[in-house]
Amino acid sequence: MSSLLLKNVIHQQRPCDVHIVGNRIKSIAPTLKLSADQVIDGHGRLAVMPAFYNSHTHAAMTLLRGYADDLELFTWLSKYIWPAEERLSAEDIYAGSRLANLEMIKSGTVFYNDMYWLPTETARAVEEMGMRAMLGMLMICGEDGEVLPRNRKANQALLEKADELPGRIRISYAPHACYTVSEKILRRLADDAREKGRYVHIHAAESRREVEDCRNAHGGLSPIAYLDRLGVLSERCVLAHCVHLSEEDIAIIRERGAVISHMPASNMKLSSGNFNFQAVAEKGRCRVTIGTDGCASNNNLSMLEEMKLAALLAKACSSDPTVANDGLVYDMATRLAAEAFGLDAGVVAEGKLADLILVELDHPVMVGDYNLVANLVYAADTSVIHSVICDGRVLMENHYVPGEEEIIAKAREACRRIKP
Amino acid sequence: MSSLLLKNVIHQQRPCDVHIVGNRIKSIAPTLKLSADQVIDGHGRLAVMPAFYNSHTHAAMTLLRGYADDLELFTWLSKYIWPAEERLSAEDIYAGSRLANLEMIKSGTVFYNDMYWLPTETARAVEEMGMRAMLGMLMICGEDGEVLPRNRKANQALLEKADELPGRIRISYAPHACYTVSEKILRRLADDAREKGRYVHIHAAESRREVEDCRNAHGGLSPIAYLDRLGVLSERCVLAHCVHLSEEDIAIIRERGAVISHMPASNMKLSSGNFNFQAVAEKGRCRVTIGTDGCASNNNLSMLEEMKLAALLAKACSSDPTVANDGLVYDMATRLAAEAFGLDAGVVAEGKLADLILVELDHPVMVGDYNLVANLVYAADTSVIHSVICDGRVLMENHYVPGEEEIIAKAREACRRIKP
Repeated sequence: MSSLLLKNVIHQQRPCDVHIVGNRIKSIAPTLKLSADQVIDGHGRLAVMPAFYNSHTHAAMTLLRGYADDLELFTWLSKYIWPAEERLSAEDIYAGSRLANLEMIKSGTVFYNDMYWLPTETARAVEEMGMRAMLGMLMICGEDGEVLPRNRKANQALLEKADELPGRIRISYAPHACYTVSEKILRRLADDAREKGRYVHIHAAESRREVEDCRNAHGGLSPIAYLDRLGVLSERCVLAHCVHLSEEDIAIIRERGAVISHMPASNMKLSSGNFNFQAVAEKGRCRVTIGTDGCASNNNLSMLEEMKLAALLAKACSSDPTVANDGLVYDMATRLAAEAFGLDAGVVAEGKLADLILVELDHPVMVGDYNLVANLVYAADTSVIHSVICDGRVLMENHYVPGEEEIIAKAREACRRIKP
Repeated sequence: MSSLLLKNVIHQQRPCDVHIVGNRIKSIAPTLKLSADQVIDGHGRLAVMPAFYNSHTHAAMTLLRGYADDLELFTWLSKYIWPAEERLSAEDIYAGSRLANLEMIKSGTVFYNDMYWLPTETARAVEEMGMRAMLGMLMICGEDGEVLPRNRKANQALLEKADELPGRIRISYAPHACYTVSEKILRRLADDAREKGRYVHIHAAESRREVEDCRNAHGGLSPIAYLDRLGVLSERCVLAHCVHLSEEDIAIIRERGAVISHMPASNMKLSSGNFNFQAVAEKGRCRVTIGTDGCASNNNLSMLEEMKLAALLAKACSSDPTVANDGLVYDMATRLAAEAFGLDAGVVAEGKLADLILVELDHPVMVGDYNLVANLVYAADTSVIHSVICDGRVLMENHYVPGEEEIIAKAREACRRIKP
């Protein structure tokens, strides 16, 4: 097994060495006298911290960053996003996913929970670039209530590849939403997911209209109540957005142990409504994680920015500055997210998976240096991320990801093809 | 006069050369065959853009970054911020101001409108580091209705230094707020400011309580109406926050041509209330600029982040995703702010002051590359800022500001002294 030694890095305000063997942290001590295949010396100026876990993405949509902004939702989707997506080739999705992986690595993220067309292309990118991911088998139904042939074909291809994929890549069921997937399919995939131990990943309660339409179509049931009746909700179900929840919805989500992906940037940019952080995450004690959504509606994949937005938006909406404190928001992006996705990681401790970042302390935004977590949540941006380790392997060292120039060039070529 | 040549930089989507002589842009053309004292080659991968202008800061509060967060406003101020400020020495304020200048330069900002204790120390930092600034003569009144002796002394020292300061540093009157400065002093400084052609910089309508107290104390007048009656409002008056404005307030501000500094991060973090962007900046047609506030309530000085927050918050609050479009928000941070502070800058054009940034285009968040302004507003962070030019002088080249290690070290030492 390969080994990695982090020399003289700061952990809990003290210099120490961290020894990683295979994909786990073997030991942490003030000084470790041993050799390793690879050594990174922090010279006492890099803090070792858990990496970030992004709970909802459409990775390849990096290619649509800045393609169309500031538009009314339906105009944006029907005139710009959907037609552009129609033009995406497999090669484009691969190029866009690689760019997303690069951007995430550069911002300290090692895992993402994705839902998009042609997931085999995203799997290829993740496999090559060394990240973790949960890749969804996207399902949208046609008028006949069956999954679209293009989804069926793509999902079949992903399943066929499943056995060859490394353990850090997992496959989930990803029905798009309760208004785009038929009741029959939702029931069936919920059963399949339970049987096979797979996650279900679905957009839920994102817009007011979705909630109204669901109540009208399903005897007054909200999207959450409806999905629960079909057996979709469980500890292995990730509900993206959850902006419009009733008290009853919150109770159902808590009871089932379902995971919420909160995405403040996307919800704000699309004017989807304001996630009730106080009611859901604090009083409601639901399992809340943080996601960036795709780049068409954010327009980046930085979990640092998303943590700050989550905290600020919660304070603005509740009129209470004590809501969404830095420690809670930080946990949602690290430890709680790792737990939610069944990863034995999210903290810097012996025995845990080595998903780590090294953070620059000699950086203007890291001074005052009273509170490292407060600085990460409220002050930092991607420029503080020095190095990134995923599953024991160094993906970025000293701000550089091998091959980044080519990844950017290829993504730019794909954008040329997409532009009408 | 010194000269600077920017070779092969991207301007309006085309490669070009930019020749700067003294502090102004002399010429922009596809190819300029001439020599210069200094040359920066963009190799076709750096865009030349206007730098940012930050319309409200307390620069030296970088030293209180992360010192106390997530607290109720009065607890935060009385238990943490004010006692810490009591301990700040002149040397500390100098160190904190230098750190702020460094952070601003690194994030593409060349000007800030500041209000803080001991402005001579901030002037020293600005003069050395080459930025522009408008430094306020802070005024807070004691129970006798006169300006505090410590303010009078500090402001006298600043005025005595005025003639030696370079033209890029200007002095304003900075009464703290209508609830901390007496009517007599407000009237007098408004007269003095008019006579001397100086700006007035004041916090106004930041909290609901401030508005209520003002109405109770001044015969039903809002802070804006009250300040206007005293003669404070004019085209040279900067009103910081303006979160709680009536329709009448908006009309007064527009009529006087007063400048608003909008600070979404600070307003959200302190739960101050939501600035009505749509009513004030769009329908109200007031002159709105963007500020970061001090680092205790933000906790950084990035105008890139602040532009995004301004756009997102406006969309979230108005439920209209077309409000606060990227072009408007970008203008507020560049061209409109330069105008508001009487600077012949804010655009990349011949004859204008050379306040410029060079932006990395070979960066993950700058692809898709459909819309450079959208990418700057919604996707970029400080890691895209390659070089910064202020008043014709290069303050940062290739992400490095000369002396940055020492500035960070000195600021950290100051934090050690402040910590109780």
